Amino acid sequence: MDKQKVIPLSRAYSLLNPGVVVLVSVGDGLRDNLFAVTWNMPVESDPPMVAILSGKDHYSYPFIERTGEFGINILDASWVNSVYLSGTTSGHDMEDKFTHVGLHRCKAERIKAPLVEEAVASLECRVVRTMDFPESVLLVAEVVEAYACANHFAHGKWTFENDLKLLHHVSGPRFCVSERAIVVEDKEGA
Amino acid sequence: MDKQKVIPLSRAYSLLNPGVVVLVSVGDGLRDNLFAVTWNMPVESDPPMVAILSGKDHYSYPFIERTGEFGINILDASWVNSVYLSGTTSGHDMEDKFTHVGLHRCKAERIKAPLVEEAVASLECRVVRTMDFPESVLLVAEVVEAYACANHFAHGKWTFENDLKLLHHVSGPRFCVSERAIVVEDKEGA
Repeated sequence: MDKQKVIPLSRAYSLLNPGVVVLVSVGDGLRDNLFAVTWNMPVESDPPMVAILSGKDHYSYPFIERTGEFGINILDASWVNSVYLSGTTSGHDMEDKFTHVGLHRCKAERIKAPLVEEAVASLECRVVRTMDFPESVLLVAEVVEAYACANHFAHGKWTFENDLKLLHHVSGPRFCVSERAIVVEDKEGA
Repeated sequence: MDKQKVIPLSRAYSLLNPGVVVLVSVGDGLRDNLFAVTWNMPVESDPPMVAILSGKDHYSYPFIERTGEFGINILDASWVNSVYLSGTTSGHDMEDKFTHVGLHRCKAERIKAPLVEEAVASLECRVVRTMDFPESVLLVAEVVEAYACANHFAHGKWTFENDLKLLHHVSGPRFCVSERAIVVEDKEGA
């Protein structure tokens, strides 16, 4: 993660604005895991808070219950196979999901869960509120640290000038890619 | 909305999977309004439920409080100016937001709020739960009807074969566009 820089927390919500699929990483210092999450969004900007959905029967869910923490990792489109594999395999069935999907750990600053070395951006999160659903839990978490590659995220927003390809989930093995920006000319000065 | 078809409710969540910016429409039969929402996601697939964030001081919020209903409208990238203008102007300051942003109403089947004629997909939603934040409310709503253009959404998923350009919000006047799909070859049969 040497190409990455710490970004101001007040802009951390911007990392999730475009509706990207993310890898959520969990860990308790002894074991760890990661899983793909399509259903995520910011919910507050300052202090930055985000929401994700997690299935209760996920291998990873008890880690979040025990530690109250998780990492969010944004992978660009070149990692689509790893993202898909992270979402279609379970930590129940393997010793090491990171190795299985071809990704590497790096150490977080303020949470026990590892982050993903290959990510273009990562957020360290602490759960502050939950909403229960029959088979899943909506987890609202405060972002306590955030990082992004300086050549893809500058002045608090994603930039597409250096061939960034953000990854969005469509359905099953189908994803879509955003790789260009449109900037609206603001005639009303809003 | 003659090019659109009703889609099975069990696939309605797929409309929001790619993380698109949406226009939320509200109305009580007397007045109506619409506003742009970057922060939205599905939260359940069957019955389909979605979550959006709405500011409490929005002109539209009391409509949702009174009626318990709203529409979600997905506009493609050709409507980026209308989407931006919907998010940067307030219904407090004008008689008719639809006209101001260059969009047209069409009638919903099961809610009082109008839908947006130009949308590639629309969802009719009824609020079932809320989570309060200092300046906004997370609204969880059940999708009671859903429509999508048949040439862009088929077999329960978005297709990019007919030049679909989905719109995602980056920051302020900056948006990004997804216009091609990647399909992962599933070696594990997941």
